[in-house]
Amino acid sequence: MTSENTLDDEDTFKILIATDIHLGYLEKDAVRGNDTFNTFDEILKCAKQNQVDFILLGGDLFHENKPSRRCLHSCISLLRKYCMGDTPILFDVLSDQAVNFSNSKFPWVNYQDENLNISIPVFSVHGNHDDPTGADGLCALDLLSSAGLVNHFGRSQSVERIEISPVLLQKGSTKLALYGIGSIPDERLYRMFVNNQVTMLRPKEDQDQWFNLFTIHQNRSKHGATNYIPEQFLDDFLDLVVWGHEHECLINPSRNEQRLFYVTQPGSSVATSLSPGEAVKKHIGLLRVKGRKMNLQKIPLHTVRQFFIQDLVLSEHPDLFNPDMPKVNQRVEAFCQEKVEAMIEEAERDRLGNPLTPEKPLIRLRVDYSGGFEAFNATRFSQKFVEQVANPKDVVHFIRQKEYKAKVKEDVDFGQLLSHSSTEGLRVEDLVKEYFLTAEKTVQLSLLTEQGMGKAVQEYVDKEEKDAIEELIRYQLEKTQRHLQQRGVLTEEEIDQEIRRFRESKKNTAEEDEEVQVVSQEHTHTHTHTHTHTHTHTPHHITCIRSYQYSSLCRPSTELKLTA
Amino acid sequence: MTSENTLDDEDTFKILIATDIHLGYLEKDAVRGNDTFNTFDEILKCAKQNQVDFILLGGDLFHENKPSRRCLHSCISLLRKYCMGDTPILFDVLSDQAVNFSNSKFPWVNYQDENLNISIPVFSVHGNHDDPTGADGLCALDLLSSAGLVNHFGRSQSVERIEISPVLLQKGSTKLALYGIGSIPDERLYRMFVNNQVTMLRPKEDQDQWFNLFTIHQNRSKHGATNYIPEQFLDDFLDLVVWGHEHECLINPSRNEQRLFYVTQPGSSVATSLSPGEAVKKHIGLLRVKGRKMNLQKIPLHTVRQFFIQDLVLSEHPDLFNPDMPKVNQRVEAFCQEKVEAMIEEAERDRLGNPLTPEKPLIRLRVDYSGGFEAFNATRFSQKFVEQVANPKDVVHFIRQKEYKAKVKEDVDFGQLLSHSSTEGLRVEDLVKEYFLTAEKTVQLSLLTEQGMGKAVQEYVDKEEKDAIEELIRYQLEKTQRHLQQRGVLTEEEIDQEIRRFRESKKNTAEEDEEVQVVSQEHTHTHTHTHTHTHTHTPHHITCIRSYQYSSLCRPSTELKLTA
Repeated sequence: MTSENTLDDEDTFKILIATDIHLGYLEKDAVRGNDTFNTFDEILKCAKQNQVDFILLGGDLFHENKPSRRCLHSCISLLRKYCMGDTPILFDVLSDQAVNFSNSKFPWVNYQDENLNISIPVFSVHGNHDDPTGADGLCALDLLSSAGLVNHFGRSQSVERIEISPVLLQKGSTKLALYGIGSIPDERLYRMFVNNQVTMLRPKEDQDQWFNLFTIHQNRSKHGATNYIPEQFLDDFLDLVVWGHEHECLINPSRNEQRLFYVTQPGSSVATSLSPGEAVKKHIGLLRVKGRKMNLQKIPLHTVRQFFIQDLVLSEHPDLFNPDMPKVNQRVEAFCQEKVEAMIEEAERDRLGNPLTPEKPLIRLRVDYSGGFEAFNATRFSQKFVEQVANPKDVVHFIRQKEYKAKVKEDVDFGQLLSHSSTEGLRVEDLVKEYFLTAEKTVQLSLLTEQGMGKAVQEYVDKEEKDAIEELIRYQLEKTQRHLQQRGVLTEEEIDQEIRRFRESKKNTAEEDEEVQVVSQEHTHTHTHTHTHTHTHTPHHITCIRSYQYSSLCRPSTELKLTA
Repeated sequence: MTSENTLDDEDTFKILIATDIHLGYLEKDAVRGNDTFNTFDEILKCAKQNQVDFILLGGDLFHENKPSRRCLHSCISLLRKYCMGDTPILFDVLSDQAVNFSNSKFPWVNYQDENLNISIPVFSVHGNHDDPTGADGLCALDLLSSAGLVNHFGRSQSVERIEISPVLLQKGSTKLALYGIGSIPDERLYRMFVNNQVTMLRPKEDQDQWFNLFTIHQNRSKHGATNYIPEQFLDDFLDLVVWGHEHECLINPSRNEQRLFYVTQPGSSVATSLSPGEAVKKHIGLLRVKGRKMNLQKIPLHTVRQFFIQDLVLSEHPDLFNPDMPKVNQRVEAFCQEKVEAMIEEAERDRLGNPLTPEKPLIRLRVDYSGGFEAFNATRFSQKFVEQVANPKDVVHFIRQKEYKAKVKEDVDFGQLLSHSSTEGLRVEDLVKEYFLTAEKTVQLSLLTEQGMGKAVQEYVDKEEKDAIEELIRYQLEKTQRHLQQRGVLTEEEIDQEIRRFRESKKNTAEEDEEVQVVSQEHTHTHTHTHTHTHTHTPHHITCIRSYQYSSLCRPSTELKLTA
């Protein structure tokens, strides 16, 4: 990477990169209600001050699938304020815009519209929070796009297969191919990758001259076996992946050593949960691309409300308190109060000289009270800080070690699955599929049912993996029989045992999988969980075939004829 | 009025006038779902073809206070398609735009925005369907205005008093003062007029050179004593009033002989109920203004779904059927079928040569079956026409004469009041006020309570109507006492009698009222009800004072200093 200044010339794209702005998050909160709008203002102002060529957003510009009127109004007003004006646009679009923006009634880039004086074009894929719904398949971004304020790209027309046709941009001698996929339920996109239904088109000529930039809005960290998108799924001709959806700011590009591309994860510009990932200092990126070289400059966001989180494990302080001490509860509460006050002080010091930063920080003390301690009233405790913190309802949060473990061990949590899907506006169809794909007991059956025996055979014969198919079919049939036998015969305990056995085998195979795939380090950064695996190597043929399919993705991408 | 062509010159404003487009009405209906969008398309296309200077909308552009995404998307796309472009705008704005559009973050007319290439500016007040709500006081129009697609004017900042500052426009030598009030609950606006809280500002100089155009979105027909805005409330310096909200097309300007202005009521461009007023052929207007002369050209709308309605009073056909005939039900049903088929045929003939008109008409046969007849199954009957009509659920509608009478006699129908308010997004506050102001038994009490005795005295003393006040107070006190005595003492029948007596007295006084006010003919056109009055002249002092206040409105309007 080159230093910043040498790159600012007529051949250098300057791109402001941000994601998960979540406009409208907690907009009715008296204290935090304006946070997302203030930060969007800061981001746009930053783009303007840095005279970027365009802004690239990685999805979830809106927190709600149907943003409130106020939210839409603020967003439209801010875009009109900062992204319209006389600054000339110094790059061209070379691709067929009717394809790139085929979903729009105005299928061309907004800055080329004769009736709009755009100074900073915004390109965005949609996220899971603002994904298309309804018969017309419109999303909130499409309102902005119909008003000419945003270029919504990466919209797939089909649920059968995804063909990503890049927006081809040229500035001076630099050629930039901009790829994107708007959010798709992870399980579904995972399957599509596995089934070879995702294709990235490439320019026919001068392929090695293009800088290939890809924007994706999916789970990067592994939530369940197929509930994320492994970086390895992505084509290796890519140069940089902008990964949205994950809220932790890991904006420094990390290299995927298998695919030899970089991944930047800008993270959200607002904390939508009080988890450790959200406490990482929020940044946006100023990406410079010249030829095939790039430089990503981190820009800290000043309007973001501070968030400090600390963990306190009571059993780790036997010198201070143990459950048998008299008045141990008061001692614990007093200790927690000290901790919280210290965090508030730290926040105050930290905020000095940052007049844009909101006064009240978010403070979270996670107290692990396992080992015989009692929890005190968290709400009453939190209320003490009503004048000092922005979250006076939940400053303290009690956990037990058990909870940690539960999170690590269970791949499927139906309660979480349901609440997750309801907040993220998934369709019933997806929920049902997700259920069948993740539910341990039924996953094998459902896969078989869904694809149909014949189709499965055809598919795997094509891949010349006959042995694997035979094993797959035998395995599935056995499972089916066993499943049927179980109905009404086994006790609940025996079923539980069976499930545990399945989990063990699956987890191990997943681990094998990772070994085969040479997973790079980055995507494990995203999660703070520590995975503990037992190394029993049970064979698992579905995963085997899946890992076979991975390698089939290393095909040369289809050629794209340029239209201009 | 002059003929159309002679007026088309550099001094002539050409204004397309439309109202109550109700975008999104029945948008999920498989047959009628696109009607409102198609007609909005036709209206905008018409504006473009006629090269109008601007479009003036009288409110209710949207049917829903919170339009669906699809609805907003269509509206934005249509406005961008038709109202942006290179056609130069040939008129200037002379007034202080920061005042005219003070509610906007971009407080200037959209065509003067350097970043927007507007070819046809749209000016609109809001209606009751799309009125401002929420803490931010935003309405759906404000989304369009923030995107620069509409100029939302006539927005009152205060609920205490309304000061209408006109948008002053000049084209060549013609000066046009554009006034507007966005929809306000009728009862409230009525009171504000009565209490002298509505002021219309006027240019200081050359007052007689201005053509004064006023846009209002209120009840024009009398729904209850104070639940409408009498034309007489409006200032007499006005030249033309564009009256929105009323759906019947009475677009030919009618002259108010008392105030000496004209009123045009364009009517809705979609039938949102199957009532006779909606069956009048829909038009929009092409208004030409040169100096202080005007010409209003009616333009029929071709995309509007046909609507035919007929009344059948069974008892008026004793030769055909009477309740004692054998199989009279079948005869009635067969007769109705003939009637409906005749209407469908008429619609088909009428549609010939109008390819833009939707194929299936709206058909309504109202059957008055009073006099001992029985109603047949209306839904089953209607279903017979599922292939031919757009409303196959309710082609026939049974009524009894009693219902007619009830509608005429009762000023208050709580069921209707409630359903009305829920569809029109009124606030609870307004509903409560409306209730207290219209409810027969309590109206006198509530008036007294609301204003407070002292305030009432002050108010009427100021008007030098001491006798009237004393009578009012005595009357109110008596009513209060009587009301309290009634509680638990009178039987329900006796209370009903009491109510009837109140109604009689009130109706008569209302009639007196109209005589005093010299109401012009127009606003009675709007309603198809036939009022039958009994002429017992009971004195009614509230109305007396009210009619006194009318005349106090004939004040000279305040002067407005031009800022440009």
